[in-house]
Amino acid sequence: MKPTLPLPEIEEATSAIVGEEMHALVAKLFPVCRSITGNGVRQTLQILQDYIPLVVHEVPSGTPVFDWVVPKEWNIQDAYLLNEAGEKVVDFAANNLHVLNYSTPINKQLPLQELKKHLFSLPEQPDLIPYKTSYYKPNWGFCLPDRQLQTLEEGLYTAVIDATLEDGSLTYGELYLPGETEDEVLVSSHVCHPSICNDNLSGIAVATFLARELAGRKNRYSYRFIFIPATIGAITWLSQNENRLANIRHGLVLTLLGDEASFTYKRTREGNFEIDEVVEHVLQACGKGYQLIDFFPYGYDERQFCSPGFNLPVGCLMRSQHGEFPEYHTSADNLEFVKAGSLAESVALLLEVTQVLEQNRKYRNTNPKCEPKLGKRGLYDSIAGSGDWKSREMAMFWLLNLSDGQHSLLAIAKRSGIAFSTIAEVAAVLQQHALLEPVT
Amino acid sequence: MKPTLPLPEIEEATSAIVGEEMHALVAKLFPVCRSITGNGVRQTLQILQDYIPLVVHEVPSGTPVFDWVVPKEWNIQDAYLLNEAGEKVVDFAANNLHVLNYSTPINKQLPLQELKKHLFSLPEQPDLIPYKTSYYKPNWGFCLPDRQLQTLEEGLYTAVIDATLEDGSLTYGELYLPGETEDEVLVSSHVCHPSICNDNLSGIAVATFLARELAGRKNRYSYRFIFIPATIGAITWLSQNENRLANIRHGLVLTLLGDEASFTYKRTREGNFEIDEVVEHVLQACGKGYQLIDFFPYGYDERQFCSPGFNLPVGCLMRSQHGEFPEYHTSADNLEFVKAGSLAESVALLLEVTQVLEQNRKYRNTNPKCEPKLGKRGLYDSIAGSGDWKSREMAMFWLLNLSDGQHSLLAIAKRSGIAFSTIAEVAAVLQQHALLEPVT
Amino acid sequence: MKPTLPLPEIEEATSAIVGEEMHALVAKLFPVCRSITGNGVRQTLQILQDYIPLVVHEVPSGTPVFDWVVPKEWNIQDAYLLNEAGEKVVDFAANNLHVLNYSTPINKQLPLQELKKHLFSLPEQPDLIPYKTSYYKPNWGFCLPDRQLQTLEEGLYTAVIDATLEDGSLTYGELYLPGETEDEVLVSSHVCHPSICNDNLSGIAVATFLARELAGRKNRYSYRFIFIPATIGAITWLSQNENRLANIRHGLVLTLLGDEASFTYKRTREGNFEIDEVVEHVLQACGKGYQLIDFFPYGYDERQFCSPGFNLPVGCLMRSQHGEFPEYHTSADNLEFVKAGSLAESVALLLEVTQVLEQNRKYRNTNPKCEPKLGKRGLYDSIAGSGDWKSREMAMFWLLNLSDGQHSLLAIAKRSGIAFSTIAEVAAVLQQHALLEPVT
Repeated sequence: MKPTLPLPEIEEATSAIVGEEMHALVAKLFPVCRSITGNGVRQTLQILQDYIPLVVHEVPSGTPVFDWVVPKEWNIQDAYLLNEAGEKVVDFAANNLHVLNYSTPINKQLPLQELKKHLFSLPEQPDLIPYKTSYYKPNWGFCLPDRQLQTLEEGLYTAVIDATLEDGSLTYGELYLPGETEDEVLVSSHVCHPSICNDNLSGIAVATFLARELAGRKNRYSYRFIFIPATIGAITWLSQNENRLANIRHGLVLTLLGDEASFTYKRTREGNFEIDEVVEHVLQACGKGYQLIDFFPYGYDERQFCSPGFNLPVGCLMRSQHGEFPEYHTSADNLEFVKAGSLAESVALLLEVTQVLEQNRKYRNTNPKCEPKLGKRGLYDSIAGSGDWKSREMAMFWLLNLSDGQHSLLAIAKRSGIAFSTIAEVAAVLQQHALLEPVT
Repeated sequence: MKPTLPLPEIEEATSAIVGEEMHALVAKLFPVCRSITGNGVRQTLQILQDYIPLVVHEVPSGTPVFDWVVPKEWNIQDAYLLNEAGEKVVDFAANNLHVLNYSTPINKQLPLQELKKHLFSLPEQPDLIPYKTSYYKPNWGFCLPDRQLQTLEEGLYTAVIDATLEDGSLTYGELYLPGETEDEVLVSSHVCHPSICNDNLSGIAVATFLARELAGRKNRYSYRFIFIPATIGAITWLSQNENRLANIRHGLVLTLLGDEASFTYKRTREGNFEIDEVVEHVLQACGKGYQLIDFFPYGYDERQFCSPGFNLPVGCLMRSQHGEFPEYHTSADNLEFVKAGSLAESVALLLEVTQVLEQNRKYRNTNPKCEPKLGKRGLYDSIAGSGDWKSREMAMFWLLNLSDGQHSLLAIAKRSGIAFSTIAEVAAVLQQHALLEPVT
Repeated sequence: MKPTLPLPEIEEATSAIVGEEMHALVAKLFPVCRSITGNGVRQTLQILQDYIPLVVHEVPSGTPVFDWVVPKEWNIQDAYLLNEAGEKVVDFAANNLHVLNYSTPINKQLPLQELKKHLFSLPEQPDLIPYKTSYYKPNWGFCLPDRQLQTLEEGLYTAVIDATLEDGSLTYGELYLPGETEDEVLVSSHVCHPSICNDNLSGIAVATFLARELAGRKNRYSYRFIFIPATIGAITWLSQNENRLANIRHGLVLTLLGDEASFTYKRTREGNFEIDEVVEHVLQACGKGYQLIDFFPYGYDERQFCSPGFNLPVGCLMRSQHGEFPEYHTSADNLEFVKAGSLAESVALLLEVTQVLEQNRKYRNTNPKCEPKLGKRGLYDSIAGSGDWKSREMAMFWLLNLSDGQHSLLAIAKRSGIAFSTIAEVAAVLQQHALLEPVT
């Protein structure tokens, strides 16, 4: 099938400008030390509010959310490791990945051997700082390059983590763009990772710019963007918004969208929801390489959205896959790893996905017995003229034949082999002539 | 699967005699100038009445038929183009394709440049006269070989088309062969094309000889043959017979059945009606090459029969496909292009299709718990003896096992790998012994 | 998918001991002259009673069973063929295959030419005695190697078959092992063939040892083993037990399980019952070659169990296939042809099949909205530790995600690519923590 809107065109139109602007947003968010709770998330959402009118929600620590409880709020001022000479051998100020995320506070002298139980490194990637967390098992620690770890001399070290773990709240951001109907498209990005870029400043930036673009359009669907801490944030949001879930018609988790790999789409749990069909169509129509993978209950917040009690039509769009690229969860996932062009292309692809979703309706032929007489309505002339007259004429016949209320425009495009955009345009013409009416 | 009735046998039996007779019918019909209305159709049906007892229907001009209206009747006496010297450079009497079919009357002098707007030729096939029509946009014109068009000298020409376009009627022919049940097989051929043979004097001749053959048989199904102008004829017939459509169980549009290409079957809109299964089976069983193509809303009157308001189980049997052979809609689709052998083979194939349809019932095993004791009924002996005893014995077991009212004989033939004819014969034997009863 | 219980392990554990014991049972059963009725079957069941507590049933001759009637009882004392010199040229005492099974009694002198109508041999396997029967057409005869038949000289022969055909009963054996539920697994073997081993002393021995093993276990399903004469025995059993058939959830016909060929599974009539899925899974998981064949209404008693009035979920497990190995129904199907190792492996495979059936339930996640918090239940630790921690953790996630009451454990194993045994073990752990509950 021919692409509906060839990706190169969108890309050209957007990358030069928006790509750089998106990368600048990533750079602004980069230094902030985020976690599942605390000021890092607040500061992140505040920066996003310069781009889109996010509403910020605070859910108090201790609030029950399904099988979980909203945890304490973690805030960190400083952290470092001093050697016997009083030199800072590891310093949070240099890179917030140096601290085991969500560490309990500590200020303690201890010998290297004991300290080593709290040091994390990557022997196979000896120059990189790993990104490590310990949310639900109280612990403290430092992360550092293995090459540095190996050079630490025996002796007493002072470990200082000036952090607080206190009742407070879990913070998330939400933007609702009302459309013609209350049927919703949900777009979710996690905002809990500190200074790593692809995971998930890329997803945050793509969601933000997608939202900004859609806010300027008249949409059939309402769009809900949520910026949430992974896992506990998704659980909290689902728990707090359970009564609204019935409106969700389609959804996407956005993550890992800034690197240079081709797109990967992870299907919904059912695997055959409309969002699956539409994303697959757009990826195929774009004429570039891509991967389709089936749902599995691991990865990002699709785990929660697709749990059996909800089974929401939510897939996950990525480029490189969770856990499958060497920079994953390390200091190498930095500002150089994400590219302005990739970010822009991700927005372009998602705009195309929303465009197809917006237009992908089912119609009913108002004149279903035999073909209507097109000539007397001037329909041959009205849509001829352009070079692809033949496929537009055939699009009319296909639309009239298959519009029995059962076939979506995308199904008609696939069966006929005619580009979705042609099918959608011709459907609009036939609707103007009252030959098609949308199924509600 | 082995052929039920090997095609070569039928062919041998029929081609020598019937093929020539069929070709003679095509030759008789060839000179008549048909259009969507008028005496050409009447004359055509009158010729067919020498072969089968067709009933001729007339539907007055102006009658509303769904979104359309029955058009005026077109009759033509003569037409020619004179050059300044008064010579007939184009003459309807030589070939009725020379006139744009359904031309408005004209008698006018005009210079070559103006005339050229009314001249049609095929630059890529410069020796052929194209077949052109203008039914719904009033126009007049002449069709001629491009090689001749290029030689026309500047000067004044006299265009004469002695035709009438007046209130009258649309004419179609119908033959109903009552069977044991009111369940109907519909066979439709278009009768509106003038002197071109494959499209569709071939379909007309095949339908006629098929009807003549079936009229001499005792059939389970009733058969309805209609000979109608394309598009408007189908729309008119459907409109006038809407209350009878519920009886249609299977149907075929017959066209392009006289050339030497292998068979092409275009499936119904649903693609899995019994007629699809049966035609595909017969084509496969015949052991010759063939093409199967999916329904698309273009081509012949399957467009109307398969419109969403009817969605009838009507496929289309052809040899060469609509628009896809060089002789299509030109003067090269002539008496040499259609062959006696091809016409006869088409009838033979269709007889086999009807034979399978007639026999393809579902049965119920009257003794469904365990196998019945065949020996005490003499069934091992009664059907043994012939060389394929083994497959007849297996046919008994398969029939007894799968006759639960859900499996047709064709389904049993396919699942067992035994020839349909064997399955059908053995089913008849088991029915005689009251071990099977047909599902009604 | 990895094997649940690797077959080599089971095989090692069982073949050395049980295989030899099984072969000894086959050897004990070998000399008995069985038929569809008579003391041969009784003696066979009596031998089996030394292994398992079979209940023996007698159904009187003349009892109507569906379309059939229980036949007379056949018992044979002796049979031989004397030449003119009074020498026994064929002797039942040497091999009971020498008598046409179910022969009418005879004591008659007749010339070679007349005698030959009653002699059966295999010209293409001239050294083998064929196994022949004539149950429903009264006849008598002798079977002998063709090489011997060819050497018989002209002259008068005396044919003596000292047999009786009198009212008596049809005998079958049955063992019911009650389980937690009344849902039943039916295992059927035919016991009517005389001195041939693979067909079906192998199936009898495998069923016996499988029953003995299952009798020592606590099972969810009840198991019913039947040892019946082929065809008439199955028909009789079905007729006498029609009211119990509704309990049958799964079933297998066991036959031809002692030769060295790889396993063949013949699917049920429907082809997609749970027994089909489970046997196919186990065969695949074992990592050896195997064949899957679709149901056809010929072969063994699956013909009766799968007749349309019952359509029971009964497949057939074999190694070599019915009629498709040279030793089939000849004296070459002897004690050397069946191997201790093959018999033991057949039992091992069937134990694995029953193990999967026992465990293959559907569960419901009791906490279906989002993932439950596994850490607070110590579930990460409780099941970690072993080397395949990763797949056990993923098994938890898959089980929680797909346990919506619709997916069996086998379906979850297939979709996740995790071994069924891991899935089943982890399901048990989650059930202990009340995170899963079985669907009833």
